[in-house]
Amino acid sequence: MQPQRKLINSVDRCVDEALCGIVRASGGLSLLKGHRVVLRSDLDNLRGKVALLSGGGSGHEPAHGGYIGAGMLSAAVAGGVFASPPPTSILAAILSLHNAGAAGVLLIVKNYTGDRLNFGLAAEQARNQGIAVDMVVVAEDCAFDQPSKAGRRGLCGTVFIHKLAGALAEEGCPLDRIVSTVTEVLKGIGTLGVSLSPCSVPGCLPSFDLPQGDMELGLGIHGEPGIKRSKVASADEVVKTMIDHMTSPASQSHLPLKSGDSVVLCVNNLGALSYLEMAVVTRASVICLESRGVVVARVMSGTFMTSLEMAGVSLTLMKADQETLRLFDAKTSAPAWPNLSSECVSGRSYVTEAPVMSSQPQDSTYSEGPLSPLMHKVLVKVCSTLLERQEELNSLDRACGDGDCGNTHAQAAKAIQQWLQNHKVPGCPGRLLLVLAGLVQEKMGGSSGALYSLFLTAAASHVTEGQSNAAAWASAMHAGTQAMRRYGGADPGDRTMLDALCPAVDELMKLVTAPPDAQMSVLQAAVQKAATGAEGTRLLQAKAGRASYIATDRVTLPDPGAMAVAAILGAIVETLEEQK
Amino acid sequence: MQPQRKLINSVDRCVDEALCGIVRASGGLSLLKGHRVVLRSDLDNLRGKVALLSGGGSGHEPAHGGYIGAGMLSAAVAGGVFASPPPTSILAAILSLHNAGAAGVLLIVKNYTGDRLNFGLAAEQARNQGIAVDMVVVAEDCAFDQPSKAGRRGLCGTVFIHKLAGALAEEGCPLDRIVSTVTEVLKGIGTLGVSLSPCSVPGCLPSFDLPQGDMELGLGIHGEPGIKRSKVASADEVVKTMIDHMTSPASQSHLPLKSGDSVVLCVNNLGALSYLEMAVVTRASVICLESRGVVVARVMSGTFMTSLEMAGVSLTLMKADQETLRLFDAKTSAPAWPNLSSECVSGRSYVTEAPVMSSQPQDSTYSEGPLSPLMHKVLVKVCSTLLERQEELNSLDRACGDGDCGNTHAQAAKAIQQWLQNHKVPGCPGRLLLVLAGLVQEKMGGSSGALYSLFLTAAASHVTEGQSNAAAWASAMHAGTQAMRRYGGADPGDRTMLDALCPAVDELMKLVTAPPDAQMSVLQAAVQKAATGAEGTRLLQAKAGRASYIATDRVTLPDPGAMAVAAILGAIVETLEEQK
Repeated sequence: MQPQRKLINSVDRCVDEALCGIVRASGGLSLLKGHRVVLRSDLDNLRGKVALLSGGGSGHEPAHGGYIGAGMLSAAVAGGVFASPPPTSILAAILSLHNAGAAGVLLIVKNYTGDRLNFGLAAEQARNQGIAVDMVVVAEDCAFDQPSKAGRRGLCGTVFIHKLAGALAEEGCPLDRIVSTVTEVLKGIGTLGVSLSPCSVPGCLPSFDLPQGDMELGLGIHGEPGIKRSKVASADEVVKTMIDHMTSPASQSHLPLKSGDSVVLCVNNLGALSYLEMAVVTRASVICLESRGVVVARVMSGTFMTSLEMAGVSLTLMKADQETLRLFDAKTSAPAWPNLSSECVSGRSYVTEAPVMSSQPQDSTYSEGPLSPLMHKVLVKVCSTLLERQEELNSLDRACGDGDCGNTHAQAAKAIQQWLQNHKVPGCPGRLLLVLAGLVQEKMGGSSGALYSLFLTAAASHVTEGQSNAAAWASAMHAGTQAMRRYGGADPGDRTMLDALCPAVDELMKLVTAPPDAQMSVLQAAVQKAATGAEGTRLLQAKAGRASYIATDRVTLPDPGAMAVAAILGAIVETLEEQK
Repeated sequence: MQPQRKLINSVDRCVDEALCGIVRASGGLSLLKGHRVVLRSDLDNLRGKVALLSGGGSGHEPAHGGYIGAGMLSAAVAGGVFASPPPTSILAAILSLHNAGAAGVLLIVKNYTGDRLNFGLAAEQARNQGIAVDMVVVAEDCAFDQPSKAGRRGLCGTVFIHKLAGALAEEGCPLDRIVSTVTEVLKGIGTLGVSLSPCSVPGCLPSFDLPQGDMELGLGIHGEPGIKRSKVASADEVVKTMIDHMTSPASQSHLPLKSGDSVVLCVNNLGALSYLEMAVVTRASVICLESRGVVVARVMSGTFMTSLEMAGVSLTLMKADQETLRLFDAKTSAPAWPNLSSECVSGRSYVTEAPVMSSQPQDSTYSEGPLSPLMHKVLVKVCSTLLERQEELNSLDRACGDGDCGNTHAQAAKAIQQWLQNHKVPGCPGRLLLVLAGLVQEKMGGSSGALYSLFLTAAASHVTEGQSNAAAWASAMHAGTQAMRRYGGADPGDRTMLDALCPAVDELMKLVTAPPDAQMSVLQAAVQKAATGAEGTRLLQAKAGRASYIATDRVTLPDPGAMAVAAILGAIVETLEEQK
């Protein structure tokens, strides 16, 4: 078994290059020369304020570099992937912040032995140099009923502490009060993770083996094992299991949560969960909390504290009073902080009434007019023609598509026939075109249905009861064709229905100026152009539609869509000729 | 082969539930009743401004719902996963925006036939109702040298159009001018993707088969095939290949880019690439562009237009003049828009000088004092004792750890011996403790090195040249022990070195009040307490350190760390006795 290939340059350089990438992408960040330390590029703004330093192993991006900015961290120190950073770099970061004039430095450390010792050592060294340093250890994992002596792990809740401490520091709050405030808030934070996959440190095999279809509950952000493995359940069930476990008084590491409590919810992508799944989990979490009477005050859903490419999610809950929410809502320039609304999630109305849509044209009742009988006859003829030619069109389509061109046209024809049985043909031609547009959109389906519907919809406004002479019909045909070209993206020569339609419409445009007695010959010429155009598609290479995916040499028959258009035009004009 | 299990409730409901999740998490969003439409909850603010509507198939989250807010979209319509939305819902969205008083509606559509037809149909229907509607089709894919008639695909560049059009609309710019502006900008946008994995529609098998270790260049956001498959190369090579291809004049769909041009770069996670890799790719992209003389004006790196859980990345470049940048930088409340700096990326100084660190204590030169000879003797004795007991400590450690406890202590002893050969022992005891802290941190390594170093660093400030009586030493030992407990997280009784150290320090605290002639007996009693405490660890269950992972019944020997501490204290007091 080989380690998974990753999109990096080398295992040795990936951490340094990732830090460089984070810094280069963000105007507010800077790298400390010779160290894996990211800091605010505007260190001057720290003067007289408490500076915040966090950090830990890499592989949790965007933590912690992404949380640097006004109103959040002042700097972050990175170790190797999943490895604690060296005390020398932590000390260098502390000194940089101190030298910038910070009124003390707060270290925010996730509860892992290596981080505690290394940050602790740097803190003691800084103190020996007379720098005011304090340290807050975040330990909010809810996985273990009886946590070991090492205590609960520090997970995504750390980001909340970055935010609240950052807002306080920005306000000029002194070090001791920041420590006491976040220490109190920490008691009301809990996190639990679940994953459908392991992750793998660059150059290494996956951290554990998880069969496809299984999930592991309560795992850490370094691929440490969790507390329970099971088949992947539904999102609702998984979320319920998680929140039950997080709040169970039987667990020593539970978060005490009762009806009426107000919380901030963080739905955190551990790396590779799709955002579709993330959104489903977010909905399930909000609903689950609300069903317990908990007020969900804010939600952040996204990628905040990852475990490389682990396909999992963690939920973090933070009990939040008004002051906590005020700090949570405060502005920050940190690049990984999301663009959040400060409106309370629970209790908000989030459904807008749909607009009153006029009933579908095909469902309305119309009054007939002088043109109704003729238009009825035309439609009857068009439908019978399409049904007669169903097999011929299918056969043409089998050579270049999925063989159903005749069927889809037959569906439209049958829908129109059925409509004619139960409805009067409106006297307004435009209305009739909208009826037909509605019928083909609903019953014909696919691209053909949309294209015919587009044609008919765009044509409709050009022919009304008062304006239905030959010139108006020509304009309508032209407008419909233009809409088809515009939205369909095809042109004449692409082996589509346009190869019949466009030459016919060019001919029909002569109706705008033709004297009445020349109109029929224009119509007949248009039908001829359509037929010729359709036949001519034999020689064309398909450039649009499904046939464009078929090798050219296999296609020697005409395009069925163009043949259908020619047949329809033929049927229309044939009916008009019979009227003369 | 089974479809991959996903964290959803059902294939049928996942799109609706995801939309609900996106809306519930964001105070500014609302769902349109009966449709898969997300819209601004503050529709009133649209009055007199152009409204922007986008959308398309689902599976691209956070697109498009995440881009709704003041300064970006007004609404978005979602289809099923990778399926175009129905015209009825698009029309409902248009009507909602129109009814809210919008001065026209702009549809922003990715160039896929289904979307073009369905949005086009809704646009025509809205026009028939007298609504001013226009449509911009985004087609910025650079994959194909000779794009088919269907044209270039619409990819992540769509998000740029959302942003620029949104900023213009917010300023009150009329519909036609928004269309002409973004149509011009679109000519200078190009995107190319690469992936190390396929994605899978919920309930379906993966969209294509890609052997582990291979990558596919130029693929679309629906798992459509790309243009080239190869072994995964280094991030730098992959980025160079991508930018070469995107800008190659030999390709009909290339982005013309020359030295001196200014661009906005978007590094977009297609779903499941780790953020560590994302950051490495971001660095490579900025460097590659700059090496061609291109000015990288802004960078956005994150998850913007996904293809479900595809482990890939796309690069989008947008040529940007000052006006484009002004629109890009404008404020928006859209939840998926990142927190960006408006500083130019290229040319910015992003490295901060490291602070002057005082040289390591062990590398300095010191002047001797009256206490130097005695402290020298104590150190010689401690070192020889640790070296004599190396094998004994290893043997104890083999029963409960990795068997190197004697070796790590011997490393520290040898480092001290070597230092003594080349340096004078400083007259100030605190200085000497800092020297020892530096040596063990550097040479001993591991948790033991960090813990000893913490002890020595915290102790150092309590004993100076002027304050080195027995009481001062007792305070120093106490402060060191407290630091070890605080940062290490262990307590007496946890089977660690504290089980020897703490009882000894409790005894040593008697030195604070003991008369001079009673001091030696306090010291001897402290050594005795340490030895007794160390022996007593036989009976203790390990709760911290490596031994905590070993089954209790296997551990019947004393803790090697505690034994080492007792030996060190014994060696110190033995030397002091010899002085008497």
